[in-house]
Amino acid sequence: MSPAKHYTLTELAELLEVRLEGDGDCVIRGLAPLADAGDGELSFLSNPAYATQLTQSNAAAVILAEKSAGSFSGNKLVSANPYVTFARATQLFDRGVDEARGIHPSAVIDPSAQIGEGVSIGAHAVVGADVRIGANSRLETGVVVGRGCSLGDDVLLHAKVVLYHDVKLGNRVTIHASSIIGADGFGFAFDGEKSIKIAQLGSVLIGDDVEIGAATTIDRGALQNTVIGDGVKIDNQVQIGHNCVIGKHTVICGCVALAGSVTVGQYCIFGGASGAVGHITVADRVQVSAMTLLSKSVQEPGVVSSGTLATPTQEWKRNALRFQQLDSIAKRLKELERKLD
Amino acid sequence: MSPAKHYTLTELAELLEVRLEGDGDCVIRGLAPLADAGDGELSFLSNPAYATQLTQSNAAAVILAEKSAGSFSGNKLVSANPYVTFARATQLFDRGVDEARGIHPSAVIDPSAQIGEGVSIGAHAVVGADVRIGANSRLETGVVVGRGCSLGDDVLLHAKVVLYHDVKLGNRVTIHASSIIGADGFGFAFDGEKSIKIAQLGSVLIGDDVEIGAATTIDRGALQNTVIGDGVKIDNQVQIGHNCVIGKHTVICGCVALAGSVTVGQYCIFGGASGAVGHITVADRVQVSAMTLLSKSVQEPGVVSSGTLATPTQEWKRNALRFQQLDSIAKRLKELERKLD
Amino acid sequence: MSPAKHYTLTELAELLEVRLEGDGDCVIRGLAPLADAGDGELSFLSNPAYATQLTQSNAAAVILAEKSAGSFSGNKLVSANPYVTFARATQLFDRGVDEARGIHPSAVIDPSAQIGEGVSIGAHAVVGADVRIGANSRLETGVVVGRGCSLGDDVLLHAKVVLYHDVKLGNRVTIHASSIIGADGFGFAFDGEKSIKIAQLGSVLIGDDVEIGAATTIDRGALQNTVIGDGVKIDNQVQIGHNCVIGKHTVICGCVALAGSVTVGQYCIFGGASGAVGHITVADRVQVSAMTLLSKSVQEPGVVSSGTLATPTQEWKRNALRFQQLDSIAKRLKELERKLD
Repeated sequence: MSPAKHYTLTELAELLEVRLEGDGDCVIRGLAPLADAGDGELSFLSNPAYATQLTQSNAAAVILAEKSAGSFSGNKLVSANPYVTFARATQLFDRGVDEARGIHPSAVIDPSAQIGEGVSIGAHAVVGADVRIGANSRLETGVVVGRGCSLGDDVLLHAKVVLYHDVKLGNRVTIHASSIIGADGFGFAFDGEKSIKIAQLGSVLIGDDVEIGAATTIDRGALQNTVIGDGVKIDNQVQIGHNCVIGKHTVICGCVALAGSVTVGQYCIFGGASGAVGHITVADRVQVSAMTLLSKSVQEPGVVSSGTLATPTQEWKRNALRFQQLDSIAKRLKELERKLD
Repeated sequence: MSPAKHYTLTELAELLEVRLEGDGDCVIRGLAPLADAGDGELSFLSNPAYATQLTQSNAAAVILAEKSAGSFSGNKLVSANPYVTFARATQLFDRGVDEARGIHPSAVIDPSAQIGEGVSIGAHAVVGADVRIGANSRLETGVVVGRGCSLGDDVLLHAKVVLYHDVKLGNRVTIHASSIIGADGFGFAFDGEKSIKIAQLGSVLIGDDVEIGAATTIDRGALQNTVIGDGVKIDNQVQIGHNCVIGKHTVICGCVALAGSVTVGQYCIFGGASGAVGHITVADRVQVSAMTLLSKSVQEPGVVSSGTLATPTQEWKRNALRFQQLDSIAKRLKELERKLD
Repeated sequence: MSPAKHYTLTELAELLEVRLEGDGDCVIRGLAPLADAGDGELSFLSNPAYATQLTQSNAAAVILAEKSAGSFSGNKLVSANPYVTFARATQLFDRGVDEARGIHPSAVIDPSAQIGEGVSIGAHAVVGADVRIGANSRLETGVVVGRGCSLGDDVLLHAKVVLYHDVKLGNRVTIHASSIIGADGFGFAFDGEKSIKIAQLGSVLIGDDVEIGAATTIDRGALQNTVIGDGVKIDNQVQIGHNCVIGKHTVICGCVALAGSVTVGQYCIFGGASGAVGHITVADRVQVSAMTLLSKSVQEPGVVSSGTLATPTQEWKRNALRFQQLDSIAKRLKELERKLD
């Protein structure tokens, strides 16, 4: 087990590349929100909504912006972007990552697989024929890597991840437990009586610095590949259909459902449980609100929403029934306007 | 394999703590709905909508309330709460639970793990360092318990469940196959070009008597813990974001998506595929209808809904297009009212 | 690893049972869309929207209908249903299916299990007591088959699939990675203070020629069985509640959520992320649009939809707020009409 970590403020300022104001020997053992932080705990202020908590905080030190520095009398780490500095600080205190542990004897590894230096492979993992795994990658317990897959350096596959055959992952890709990359896209041709399987002959290409949550599925392409760009972040329980192409640095929150052949631009954000029908295109920097469905392409950057707001069910029901008359209401209104003109 | 189970009505009345009217020697071998039950089968009446089926039922015996006892001439188990008595009866006939089987030789268990009395650990399961497992708990095939986890007594983890490090489960917790507890919450700080990972330093605490379905994900907290209260029941394919706090005895149906930092009260019910955006609070005893999105806090008990009703698509489309004019319709209506006044 | 496959056009015409026009010795090594296909690649035209691409395509050969044959001067495979012929052609080029490999020594198989001829069982798979597996079935890495399950011939269970006890699968059933069949349905009786478990005593019956995607869950019935008809196709991340009955050849797209006891007809299509509340019936040949919720039974064939269309959030919000006044708007409109009459 990784021991608990601790740093002096001098060490932290150096590691985080920020300016220290205060006691450099002060030892920090963890992070906490402003309202809860106490002895040995580092906190941060990035959202101005919490500024009032700053003066009263008992944090041993606070990461903050130059402009807020005057509001806190204790130790400070002054940063141009406190939230990014906070993110880097959390990484320093992370105890989730174990030391490399080599290859567990219960792992089943095809002799043709090329395993890089410093690779860890956990118990009951299975690595197929002609697989390449880059340096310092880690496959946790029960991971399955299908034949012909290629993994870059510093890849982390958590427990039970399944890669079907011929999937390619870039460097520094992290995939959380039980996600499945490269299962067959959902393609059938209907012959009038039954559905005939369209074998899915493409694969999945995932760029560098991609993180994928738990229990997410990304299907292999039908004839061509499904492609996930560099820096994309995908949450849990997401479904990405065959032949989707996701632009760099796009963020996809939990439970999003993208049908097949959706082309998404760069720096988009799909809110939780949102979705898109197949064969549409989404421009760069589009933000899709939670539980919104895109049923056609979005050409311009901006925020889009669908649905209605939650209200007490009795009220909602009256309004929802009237929604069924909405076209008629609009026509009747127009008729009244005509009469009154 | 557990053999089929059978009981006399005298035995059942005693086990279920209800009053028997009829033949105590009658042997019951299973349960069935009123309309289907026959020889050797026990049925129940709890929903008055099915009262007409009672007189015609061929059930060997029926669990029913005092007030319905006159409508059935056969054997009766008279209960103050027939549905609860039925639930208890199903448990008596359950063949899904095998006998304890000890620890399978293919399981990989860290020598520092503390394994309670009567624990079963299935094939290919992996138990990490410093884990504690309480008495009579069962880990089925391929379960992964990360280092530092703590499990109470009588915990049942079905096949392929993954607990990341330092997760705590109370007593009598059941988790169905392939659910993942304690994967990283979805937290990134955007530096203007890319997303910087916020290491997730909290964990997940799950109370007593919690049941969690299959393929559900509950993320670990960012700085503090995600907390699931005693008696909470969660269905399949649910996503619970980091730092959510779920009150005791709340029920969460399939495919619900809760974003991060949602605080839910006690005795709430989230209908299937409903959801909530992040950082909101839901009062006690709120019921959220299926596929409803909470986009702000709910302060009062009651039932809430959003969305529109399904109708033939051609009609729906006309109304949905008019929805885009709704604000204008309201204003034009007001203008007409003004003119007519 | 399966070597790359190739066929002459004469071979393909025979295998696909279509008419060849052109050079029978031309060797085909893969499939590609019309716009991308080149040397050695077979393409197809089924959607008339792509007809303009036909004349300019560099495909080595094209699958097309009689009526389109005049528009392409190269090699042709003339088919009565080009899309179905294309589907069959993809199967000929599929490299995803490995040769049978026998039973891996790390698999744990109960001695009472009956294993058919030609069955493959992958590493770390577990097969319980009294299981029957038909001829030529394949269980990939880490599959779990609970006691008493019965699998037909030519069943393919991808990595980490979990079948709980007593599940029955027909012939030629394919289930993708990490799907879970037969976990407990979500049933509890509330006693006024807490939820009492209703043991789920039914099972799951799956017909012939069913394909199920990855990370999908189909729950076992409460007293009776959950039933999936012959030829049904189910995508990834789908949740099917206990006691659902799905008619033959129905298609269920990704992320669909069906609550308990939903009875669905034959040849229905559930679009992505659509759903249905419990205890309703859906007629044959109903199509449910993406993210549509069925909150009551659908009696007639046809397409149904719910929800609103995605628009820029500022516009949407104004309209969504007005939705809350919709019943009042309708009443006020009626009042104006009365006044003007």
